Amino acid sequence: MKEQSLDPENWHQMRKLGHQVIDDVIDLLCNIGHVPVWNEVPQEVKNTLSTDLPQFPTTANDVYVEFLRTILPYPKGNIHPRFFAWVQGGGTPLGAFADLLASAMNPNVTIGEHSAMYVDQQVVKWCKQLMGFPETSSGLLVSGGSMANITALTVARNHKAGYDVRTNGLYGSPAALVLYCSVETHSCVLKAAEILGLGKNSVRLIGVDKQYRIKIKDLEKQIQTDLKTGFSPFCVVATVGTVNTGAIDPLKSIRDICRTYQLWFHIDGAYGAPAKLTGSHKQRLRYIEDADSVAFDLHKWFQAPYEAGCVLIKDQEVHRAAFSFTPKYLMNEMEGLAGGLDPITNYGFELSRGFKALKVWMSFKEHGIKKITRQIVQNLRQAKHLGLLITRNPELELMAPISLSIVCYRFIRQGISQSEANALNRELLIKLQVSGIASPSSTILGGAYCIRVCILNHRTKTSDIELLVAQSIKIGYSISEAIK
Amino acid sequence: MKEQSLDPENWHQMRKLGHQVIDDVIDLLCNIGHVPVWNEVPQEVKNTLSTDLPQFPTTANDVYVEFLRTILPYPKGNIHPRFFAWVQGGGTPLGAFADLLASAMNPNVTIGEHSAMYVDQQVVKWCKQLMGFPETSSGLLVSGGSMANITALTVARNHKAGYDVRTNGLYGSPAALVLYCSVETHSCVLKAAEILGLGKNSVRLIGVDKQYRIKIKDLEKQIQTDLKTGFSPFCVVATVGTVNTGAIDPLKSIRDICRTYQLWFHIDGAYGAPAKLTGSHKQRLRYIEDADSVAFDLHKWFQAPYEAGCVLIKDQEVHRAAFSFTPKYLMNEMEGLAGGLDPITNYGFELSRGFKALKVWMSFKEHGIKKITRQIVQNLRQAKHLGLLITRNPELELMAPISLSIVCYRFIRQGISQSEANALNRELLIKLQVSGIASPSSTILGGAYCIRVCILNHRTKTSDIELLVAQSIKIGYSISEAIK
Ligand SMILES: Cc1ncc(COP(=O)(O)O)c(C=O)c1O
Ligand SMILES: Cc1ncc(COP(=O)(O)O)c(C=O)c1O
Repeated sequence: MKEQSLDPENWHQMRKLGHQVIDDVIDLLCNIGHVPVWNEVPQEVKNTLSTDLPQFPTTANDVYVEFLRTILPYPKGNIHPRFFAWVQGGGTPLGAFADLLASAMNPNVTIGEHSAMYVDQQVVKWCKQLMGFPETSSGLLVSGGSMANITALTVARNHKAGYDVRTNGLYGSPAALVLYCSVETHSCVLKAAEILGLGKNSVRLIGVDKQYRIKIKDLEKQIQTDLKTGFSPFCVVATVGTVNTGAIDPLKSIRDICRTYQLWFHIDGAYGAPAKLTGSHKQRLRYIEDADSVAFDLHKWFQAPYEAGCVLIKDQEVHRAAFSFTPKYLMNEMEGLAGGLDPITNYGFELSRGFKALKVWMSFKEHGIKKITRQIVQNLRQAKHLGLLITRNPELELMAPISLSIVCYRFIRQGISQSEANALNRELLIKLQVSGIASPSSTILGGAYCIRVCILNHRTKTSDIELLVAQSIKIGYSISEAIK
Repeated sequence: MKEQSLDPENWHQMRKLGHQVIDDVIDLLCNIGHVPVWNEVPQEVKNTLSTDLPQFPTTANDVYVEFLRTILPYPKGNIHPRFFAWVQGGGTPLGAFADLLASAMNPNVTIGEHSAMYVDQQVVKWCKQLMGFPETSSGLLVSGGSMANITALTVARNHKAGYDVRTNGLYGSPAALVLYCSVETHSCVLKAAEILGLGKNSVRLIGVDKQYRIKIKDLEKQIQTDLKTGFSPFCVVATVGTVNTGAIDPLKSIRDICRTYQLWFHIDGAYGAPAKLTGSHKQRLRYIEDADSVAFDLHKWFQAPYEAGCVLIKDQEVHRAAFSFTPKYLMNEMEGLAGGLDPITNYGFELSRGFKALKVWMSFKEHGIKKITRQIVQNLRQAKHLGLLITRNPELELMAPISLSIVCYRFIRQGISQSEANALNRELLIKLQVSGIASPSSTILGGAYCIRVCILNHRTKTSDIELLVAQSIKIGYSISEAIK
């Protein structure tokens, strides 16, 4: 019987298709600023994208044609210079090529003696250098900030519990472990506490000051109260760049509190940690180096394509002690395929892991860290500039201080109520998006609906910011007129 | 001041590089059977792959040349027809193109109204159809089997605990939750129990029969003992395709026990669940449909490039109840970018998620499920054939029954002790790998070191199996001669 494979019958055609894909990818990326940032997904496309499991083959060309028709025209938009929603990076062409190469080589980067293991190790080393962590510390590339944070918190929990959590679990532990962070902390930290079996109640959400930074006095008071009432404080999570407003918690004070009370000092720098590289933030962020662990994303400000995040743990042994496992079928050898580095699965949740290191490796080589830093500086400047334009324009109101590259504002009109203002700005945001002009997102600050602009894109120009302001005013007026 | 971006200055050159990458990728894949399956990574390459963070730019071309020199020549080997280690799929050319396209579009597939959300939803729908789960069930694409299992176990824990685990955690819960699985269960299940705060002690590792399947009587006895002694049984994990030998636990009996004792019925089918599609396993595996949840990998037998796994949960509400969160900055809207489907982050650990759905979508379209099924059947047949060759050759000994596509054997020689046999086979394995002939892995069964062959590659031909056998005998003899 003839044996089949899933390789193409006709390699020549597959090669041709590959060249077509490259041309389309380059056309897409080099024109990205000249198309709408967002297009509505038509119902007909949604219908096509809900048909049943295909039974029979389709040629690769036809599959690609369908992709071109139903998928490519309706993007999320985050590669566009005027995408300002959430906290999302833009990716790069070489980053995309790297993903192709990673996928073609297709290594499982968790165990074994092969080049991808060393590339992964090198990228982790670079991540340590970025954050000023010592070479002896330990790190792991993960899918993003959420996995980076939960990985660190698993280590923190196991290390600080004071007994063998891996063996005994949390039931029947001597006291309830508690974790501290501000009310502005990203939801993934709460989610992590839930998943890890600590529960939402174990997370003390401390209030913030006017700059949305954790109130240090309240933090310390809460720790003391918890100690008195029989809880077991184990960790403080400081945020560098909150998702709402880009606030930076006072790292030095948090570090000192952690030292005093012997708590694990974790930093969620998913968004803001890269600002450590810039002149303006170097001083304030040097305390990242004192943390027991830090989470930050490579697919955000470092512009790696999705997915790529990183967690660093100061003490490699403590890291490994939380996750190491050596089942019989994963034995290390001294030689051959099963030789080589310590299996990466000993440092995290996952066994199989893709070659996400390659896109970071190629990108850091291509640009060098100095250029990447300039990119971050550029976004910081653009945010300042946007803030200035907002304060200069009486129609707009700046809703929060700008400490990184997130700017929250709203269109204002004399004499309307809060709920009318909220409705107006909600409509303004949707009009900006639907018109394809720009894609900010929204948040609520002190009850006020805000347009939230996160400038994290290497393609954003100052002129894009200026267009956003001009259009916000124009559309704001037109909505405002209509509701008069 | 001139503003920069990380886009190329010269798009034409980047395009040219892209075409070069395509040619190299196609050359790699269409010749893969004619090169050694593994090459030692030279020390010089390791040195290059340990230099410091690059400060200054390098042209994309030069970065690529370095990739060609230091990374590409030293692969893991799992795309090769004679890679038989662990449980790893091979990937496909169109799958790699899909990763390029996903990376170029670079959507964050977690929230928002854009095509990738619908592609993700469609692939999850197909996954339900593959496993015979109802349309009303719920699912999530994740990085692999480990994340799929821990996601399901989080849901199981929260649902079966009998109180609000998300709020209260496990400390002070009414009773210790316990989980059941066989001693042959993949380590990621134990790791999940540890991470989730249940602890290793909460996992009852039940013994197996001669076919490495969980002993049902022992399972039930243990549940009864635990109930009598105040534990709170909540879940049984059945394995479809154990990692050591490919054993399939008796699903029907486990299902019945779960019904009797009201336990969550989870199936780890990371490796073996796709065999459900084949005629020979359809009957035995139809009980997957009765599970509360099933984990299976797309990057294994379904040949998607890394990373892609899937978890399905029968009850969508129960799934969502374990993970849903709606912070202010992630509000859904009726229109615009923030409209659309329920955010995917409500169903799992991660917030940011890449577009891993695309490679599965393109691949299932390209081949259709019937051809993919034939591929699985082909591997099952090859495993049977290998078993036959082993039993026919007096120099080789089959070490475990073959129920899927894993075959464990060793080279034997009269009159040597167990430890000598172990050393001999260990050397045999390393010689197979280092010579570049074939890459099986190893395991220990009943104290005996075994060569473990997992046939999961769509490129493997029967002739590859025959070569493995011939070379095992030849190398086995030569080692055996040398130690005489
Ligand atoms: C401060 C902060 N922490 C954590 C996360 C989660 O990171 P990810 O989306 O990569 O999982 C984000 C994402 O925006 C964030 O801004
Ligand atoms: C039975 C079984 N379960 C779980 C896993 C873990 O899956 P992954 O490596 O995709 O995380 C494997 C991997 O080989 C497996 O064979």
